[in-house]
Amino acid sequence: MKIESVELFYLAMPEITEEVDGSQDALLVRVSAGGLVGWGECEAAPLPSIAAFVCPPSHGVCRPVGASVLGARLDSVADIARISAEVRYNSMDLLQSAHTLSGIEMALWDLLGRKHDAPVWSLLGFPASLAKTPYASLLFGETPEITRGRAEQARGEGFHAAKFGWGPIGRHGVAADAAQFEAARQGLGADAHLMVDAGQIFGTDVGAAADRLEALDAADVLWLEEPFDAGAFEAYAALAEHRSRVRLAGGEAAHNVHMAQHLLDYGRIGFVQVDCGRIGGIGPARQVAEMAAARKVTYVNHTFTSHLALSASLQPFAGMDCSRICEYPASPKPLAAAIAAVPIGLDADGCVRAPEAPGLGIDINVEAIRPYLVDTEIRVSGEVIYRTPDL
Amino acid sequence: MKIESVELFYLAMPEITEEVDGSQDALLVRVSAGGLVGWGECEAAPLPSIAAFVCPPSHGVCRPVGASVLGARLDSVADIARISAEVRYNSMDLLQSAHTLSGIEMALWDLLGRKHDAPVWSLLGFPASLAKTPYASLLFGETPEITRGRAEQARGEGFHAAKFGWGPIGRHGVAADAAQFEAARQGLGADAHLMVDAGQIFGTDVGAAADRLEALDAADVLWLEEPFDAGAFEAYAALAEHRSRVRLAGGEAAHNVHMAQHLLDYGRIGFVQVDCGRIGGIGPARQVAEMAAARKVTYVNHTFTSHLALSASLQPFAGMDCSRICEYPASPKPLAAAIAAVPIGLDADGCVRAPEAPGLGIDINVEAIRPYLVDTEIRVSGEVIYRTPDL
Repeated sequence: MKIESVELFYLAMPEITEEVDGSQDALLVRVSAGGLVGWGECEAAPLPSIAAFVCPPSHGVCRPVGASVLGARLDSVADIARISAEVRYNSMDLLQSAHTLSGIEMALWDLLGRKHDAPVWSLLGFPASLAKTPYASLLFGETPEITRGRAEQARGEGFHAAKFGWGPIGRHGVAADAAQFEAARQGLGADAHLMVDAGQIFGTDVGAAADRLEALDAADVLWLEEPFDAGAFEAYAALAEHRSRVRLAGGEAAHNVHMAQHLLDYGRIGFVQVDCGRIGGIGPARQVAEMAAARKVTYVNHTFTSHLALSASLQPFAGMDCSRICEYPASPKPLAAAIAAVPIGLDADGCVRAPEAPGLGIDINVEAIRPYLVDTEIRVSGEVIYRTPDL
Repeated sequence: MKIESVELFYLAMPEITEEVDGSQDALLVRVSAGGLVGWGECEAAPLPSIAAFVCPPSHGVCRPVGASVLGARLDSVADIARISAEVRYNSMDLLQSAHTLSGIEMALWDLLGRKHDAPVWSLLGFPASLAKTPYASLLFGETPEITRGRAEQARGEGFHAAKFGWGPIGRHGVAADAAQFEAARQGLGADAHLMVDAGQIFGTDVGAAADRLEALDAADVLWLEEPFDAGAFEAYAALAEHRSRVRLAGGEAAHNVHMAQHLLDYGRIGFVQVDCGRIGGIGPARQVAEMAAARKVTYVNHTFTSHLALSASLQPFAGMDCSRICEYPASPKPLAAAIAAVPIGLDADGCVRAPEAPGLGIDINVEAIRPYLVDTEIRVSGEVIYRTPDL
């Protein structure tokens, strides 16, 4: 097959708030080849990511992503790796290209799986898609009471694990944060996993993060996620030295395999969280999952958007027995909820699995998402180089 | 002062070739505040970088760069650091934002220097701008003869150092590369510095790079630049173990201080090359220069575009006696050559210095660059969110 077209669809809620809720907009990718289509999703700012696909070239290794993808051969898994390597090299100086590539790469896997009538996890070599314990991914409320309510609701929906993040954490002192952690634990109950996402609030301040460890231990928190800048490996390693049961987690910002590997090797994290919509897609995420297993670190997906992104993010560790917990977008905005025609639901045991259907196993509800389409047009030197395609 | 406007100008040569020549287009930034203007330049794909400034927000930490800059207070050096930190945090998930910020940050230094009637290096605390030995930054020719000719020309123009890069290196075997290194040395003469830039051609293949060390030593090459992927620290460190006089260089891709620091600490490079147009501007570059000095590593600028970018890139180490070599764009395209009204020339000793004039000390030749302006327009939901401003 030859890649005939790559269409990018910018979707957004009518109003975007300043909440750190990544489900407020989306960049969907539809790839066509050999009479088939595949879908993917970039976890990225839509407009700059579109620009990275269509922009005029700047020089030999600052070319638009489209130049390395359109017209390329796609017959095997090796072709996906080859196309990705060409994008990496030819768009070396175009920073946003990794985010753009991510959604395209997912769509290539989806398309290839549909062609071979096989789920992506099977193309990756896994004999089965194992059950994972989903954790509800939630934001801290402005008060402990709101947080407790959200935890109770997640428990009521069947979740045995939940992660709270962002909001007031790190902004109002140690005691205020301790009250938040305690409220989340109370709402969730003693027998569920509780995780905390600090959203990089401590920058490189190891002491400020260390001051929270006692309260995190008291609430029996499994991991503390992104206490620091994504690249501050030394701060991660220094915090890991402190006496605490809490392990560190990070990796969502990795836009290549090296960055995730370095968090493992230099940052001494205990959980590595990869977003397939940023790292370059499913292939690089699979590489990180293998690296993590070799280092006895638990691989976890990072997913805060749609169930298309959730399916893609489950594939790289679908068959890995050593990684049995997964992030699950528990309260996405209506736009993100509308993308998958049938969501990946919780089974009777409260578990989820990567779908058995071919490709990513997710059909896109085109009619449901149409109202969210953001009409976009880019003109350069009088020529339209991008206009929102027909859905 | 309050930042009143940030204007982005996309300039390009009429034809863009596949040469790895970053001077074929440019993204200039003009910032206005308190009746003054400052100029900067992003070393980046123009269209995605513009999009990163004007795009609608995606969520709380995926906001456009403009949201953190427009209207901000600018009275002191500390304000530049504060504005940059806000961009880093508020645009954490917008990958391209570091490249967009870089040109803006430069313009803020330029503006502040003009306000205080002081060169930027003086605002950075240096008592003087020291002479640097510029190296001509050139591309390998397709044949050794072409390379030799370029080396002879550089010598004839007064350069005592030259770096050759990209082109055929790594593509036609060890003997072909050896002939190129030898030709460069012959053209340059025995008493000049010669450096080689491999342009990441060896990916993570340490053996392939090591196979070239003997020929590099034979040509008395001072450094081998970017033999590997920018993030492949392990490969850099492994090559540094080999017996050779050649030291490794890298860092141009760093889009934050952490990345440059990690090349120093984990990649064991001997020269760290920072592009102010990518790392976030002059402030972060200054931090890396200090880190390098503390580790006895030589700081070098990475500059392949205009003399505005050259001035910006000289500032972070203008007064450092331990870093006396600098990259100098020796044969930029007419567009890049047109940007500075008066270029930074070589003195009688063949040396260059960061200008003594206020700010970056470069006046922009608006009339000369006007013909290169690329008319650009971005519409979202029927509204024009970017249109090329009047020069």
